[in-house]
Amino acid sequence: MTRHPVLIGGHWRPAHATASFNAENPALGERLPDEYPISDWADCDEALAAATAAAAVLRAEGPEKRAAFLDAFAARIEARAEELVDMAHAETGLPRKPRLAEVELPRTVGQLRQGAAAARDLSWALPTIDTKLNIRSVLAPIGPVWVFGPNNFPFAFNSVAGGDFVAAIAAGNPVIAKANTSHPGTTRLLAEEAFKALVETGLPPSTVQLIYRTSHADGERLVADPRTGATGYTGSRHAGLKLKAAADAAGKPIYLELSAVNPVLILPGALAERGAALVDEFVTSSLMGTGQFCTSPSLVLLVASDATEQFVAGVKARFEAASPAPLLSSSVARSLASSVATLQDAGARLVTGGTTVAEPGYRFRNTMLIASGEQFLASPERLQTEAFGNAALLVVARDTDELCAVVERLEGSLTGCLYTDTRGSDDTLHDRIEPALRARVGRLLNDKMPTGVAVTAAMNHGGPYPSTGHPGFTAVGIPASLRRFAMLQCYDQVRPDRLPLALRDAPPHDRVWRLVDGEWRRGPVGGA
Amino acid sequence: MTRHPVLIGGHWRPAHATASFNAENPALGERLPDEYPISDWADCDEALAAATAAAAVLRAEGPEKRAAFLDAFAARIEARAEELVDMAHAETGLPRKPRLAEVELPRTVGQLRQGAAAARDLSWALPTIDTKLNIRSVLAPIGPVWVFGPNNFPFAFNSVAGGDFVAAIAAGNPVIAKANTSHPGTTRLLAEEAFKALVETGLPPSTVQLIYRTSHADGERLVADPRTGATGYTGSRHAGLKLKAAADAAGKPIYLELSAVNPVLILPGALAERGAALVDEFVTSSLMGTGQFCTSPSLVLLVASDATEQFVAGVKARFEAASPAPLLSSSVARSLASSVATLQDAGARLVTGGTTVAEPGYRFRNTMLIASGEQFLASPERLQTEAFGNAALLVVARDTDELCAVVERLEGSLTGCLYTDTRGSDDTLHDRIEPALRARVGRLLNDKMPTGVAVTAAMNHGGPYPSTGHPGFTAVGIPASLRRFAMLQCYDQVRPDRLPLALRDAPPHDRVWRLVDGEWRRGPVGGA
Repeated sequence: MTRHPVLIGGHWRPAHATASFNAENPALGERLPDEYPISDWADCDEALAAATAAAAVLRAEGPEKRAAFLDAFAARIEARAEELVDMAHAETGLPRKPRLAEVELPRTVGQLRQGAAAARDLSWALPTIDTKLNIRSVLAPIGPVWVFGPNNFPFAFNSVAGGDFVAAIAAGNPVIAKANTSHPGTTRLLAEEAFKALVETGLPPSTVQLIYRTSHADGERLVADPRTGATGYTGSRHAGLKLKAAADAAGKPIYLELSAVNPVLILPGALAERGAALVDEFVTSSLMGTGQFCTSPSLVLLVASDATEQFVAGVKARFEAASPAPLLSSSVARSLASSVATLQDAGARLVTGGTTVAEPGYRFRNTMLIASGEQFLASPERLQTEAFGNAALLVVARDTDELCAVVERLEGSLTGCLYTDTRGSDDTLHDRIEPALRARVGRLLNDKMPTGVAVTAAMNHGGPYPSTGHPGFTAVGIPASLRRFAMLQCYDQVRPDRLPLALRDAPPHDRVWRLVDGEWRRGPVGGA
Repeated sequence: MTRHPVLIGGHWRPAHATASFNAENPALGERLPDEYPISDWADCDEALAAATAAAAVLRAEGPEKRAAFLDAFAARIEARAEELVDMAHAETGLPRKPRLAEVELPRTVGQLRQGAAAARDLSWALPTIDTKLNIRSVLAPIGPVWVFGPNNFPFAFNSVAGGDFVAAIAAGNPVIAKANTSHPGTTRLLAEEAFKALVETGLPPSTVQLIYRTSHADGERLVADPRTGATGYTGSRHAGLKLKAAADAAGKPIYLELSAVNPVLILPGALAERGAALVDEFVTSSLMGTGQFCTSPSLVLLVASDATEQFVAGVKARFEAASPAPLLSSSVARSLASSVATLQDAGARLVTGGTTVAEPGYRFRNTMLIASGEQFLASPERLQTEAFGNAALLVVARDTDELCAVVERLEGSLTGCLYTDTRGSDDTLHDRIEPALRARVGRLLNDKMPTGVAVTAAMNHGGPYPSTGHPGFTAVGIPASLRRFAMLQCYDQVRPDRLPLALRDAPPHDRVWRLVDGEWRRGPVGGA
């Protein structure tokens, strides 16, 4: 058994730690042998000091080196893909294929390369020039960024390779990664490759640092530290809100992706028109990844009818027929059981599932609960408890008025889906519901389930509180995700040779889009 | 004596109030006769309910009506300019001319018209389209916005006509204005014109509402209310941080402009080259508006030398020769005296001023304090106490190393100025200092004082905490200021006729800039 070192200040060295933890193989329910340290404040402090120095160097460098780093890191991940997939499979129970090897790993390297392209392009920073007044502004690096990655995407949201990491680095900031406790080995392998890519490309060695775990108190301290620029956090609402309170009190930006029930509204006409197909669509999306997606549809809103009873029966049959895959960890299994109990306490009736499955590993029966619209309106908060995993709550409203009332009580979510028929019979109800739903979700879908988050500039993987901490930002989608880790810097009569490259009359290349006197354009301005 | 009504739900009606307050004429030190109510929660609650209904109507309307409203309001302000200037002069002591009539009022109507143009143009919302995946996103209204205006700009930052008001309305949100206590009459006249312009242009009558004052507890409650979309606050750090804590805990965006000392660094070469001119520039900027600007330069950093002693002597002479104008209110005068005392307690030596001036009105002698670099480094926090008004602290560093150390201890400010000589002798020191200063200020200036905030797209009137609550946003500068009062809304496979106008294949007009498949362009997309 090895206790693994941390990566701080450009060195893999033993942690300042008094305790350690082990990952587990959730598919087998077994502890994995490797030990990972729980760092104390000395590690955090040293990482912050090193990141501060690295931030100054990064700011002075042009974007080329950090882009080259992201590209080199992507290539290294591909070269070590097999080992990475094996490790992530062991630590998360997620299938090697297609999920890890063919979907998530390619997405991860794709994000790294998109980040590299965005860094080189410079347009992400919205360079803005007023030529008459000689006032210019641009988004610039914010300083050391802490990234807390979630348990459910060991590659694509990994604190040392995923979306927040890419956005922070591409925007010009060093990252201090806090590994997710459920896949420290995967994070370690990724950090090894990141570090080698740093050395290769000549970035400061403290541009990427890794700590596996800290105490809760140190977590709250580090997001609020004066040297911290910002924090990206994806994880549980409970832990996230504690970090948010600490960061907010210190005036430090923190971008959170917390919990979401992702309501799916199936209007009566759609159900009448294609009920069986909708059972299939819903079950596929709901059980995908054992329901452990941020955008998993865990709340379905329906109006009482025979077709609705058939839908419920159809989902029940499919849930019972599908054998549940392992959950990501013992703590996910515990939390899922507890959330299902909360939903039941709040009045939801268990239709199927609700108990753990015998070994091997941490598995929970595919679970469906049902509640009436009246019950929902009596306990809207508790009946929106996120049951992270393979569980869904169906709320059946008495009539369309009650359905509208239910929508008005929805909390902020990442996504919301509206299914309507193709002949227009749902249109009036759609138009009544849409404004209330629209204001409560970051991404609105028509006739489509919410799982599957395309990495495109037009994506919003965000939404109103409590799904995130601010409804104006997205965690997925380049270039917008970079803008979270930036501060706005204005230059007023600053001498030409002191301006950052993107704001000079002649930009460093002709691809950068700039808002010049109210027009987006490329190329030089003025006489340049 | 009249107790004035509030404007809630489309009616001027008596407030639910148990107490009232009067404005004062600070130039005379006299209480003004009109009484204004201190609303209780019933008024806030009713205003929120009415704003929620108005928000739904505004979202459904296109941008044309709100643009027409902003234009009509601007014209009405111009038509009533004389009365507005008289009232603002009486309530603030600011000169009728040029300040109120020729500078601030034109700026205010200019902002309203820029907001109207931005609303019509739609480009502010960064419409983004991925044609291949049919995913589209745009910034959209966030919901009812509370605006708390400051005391120092009775027009241009007024809660019912100023920059935050314009930004919130142009982005499509209703505003509930909380008048600044020091100019309720000016705010009332502006609200009268806003209300008439609303009626004229057919917007919901609750699009603009006005409350004069609430208890502190109700203030904290209203920013956190579930119906609130966001809050814009400009004012004291103490009150602002209480509102921030309440809004943050509820996950409600709040944009704050708090305090700033706006450091001015005059490097040795510049002082040797043009010391006398710099005395003039600094004194003019420092005493402008009796030092009551958010961007007033109240901290000057210098290196010890004969030229520095001459600069100090020059400023002292000029401060003593200029007769102090009235401060905005008795509370500004009290707070200024208290801040000067805090600076003295922290070791600063009073060079001139430091006491009130005999009547009429609330005046304070032009005040200069001086501290050594060593003293600053011993008490950096207390020596950055904002002394809002006609007072400045000069910090004289022993040498350039100490100057750099002082810069490293600066808090976040709206602006930072670097003066260097024209022959290059300051360049090495400039390059050493610039990165540390750049990271600490929203707007960096060369060889220019910070007062004078141009309303341009390239402006940043913002900065790192504690000058604001988030370093990525600006309160001045259209279109960026609109983006604070918006949420990101993504449309994934949404049927074409259900898309907002700005995201349809054929946009409503050809002026709107859209990011289509990575390129900023105008005009239709696809086959449209």
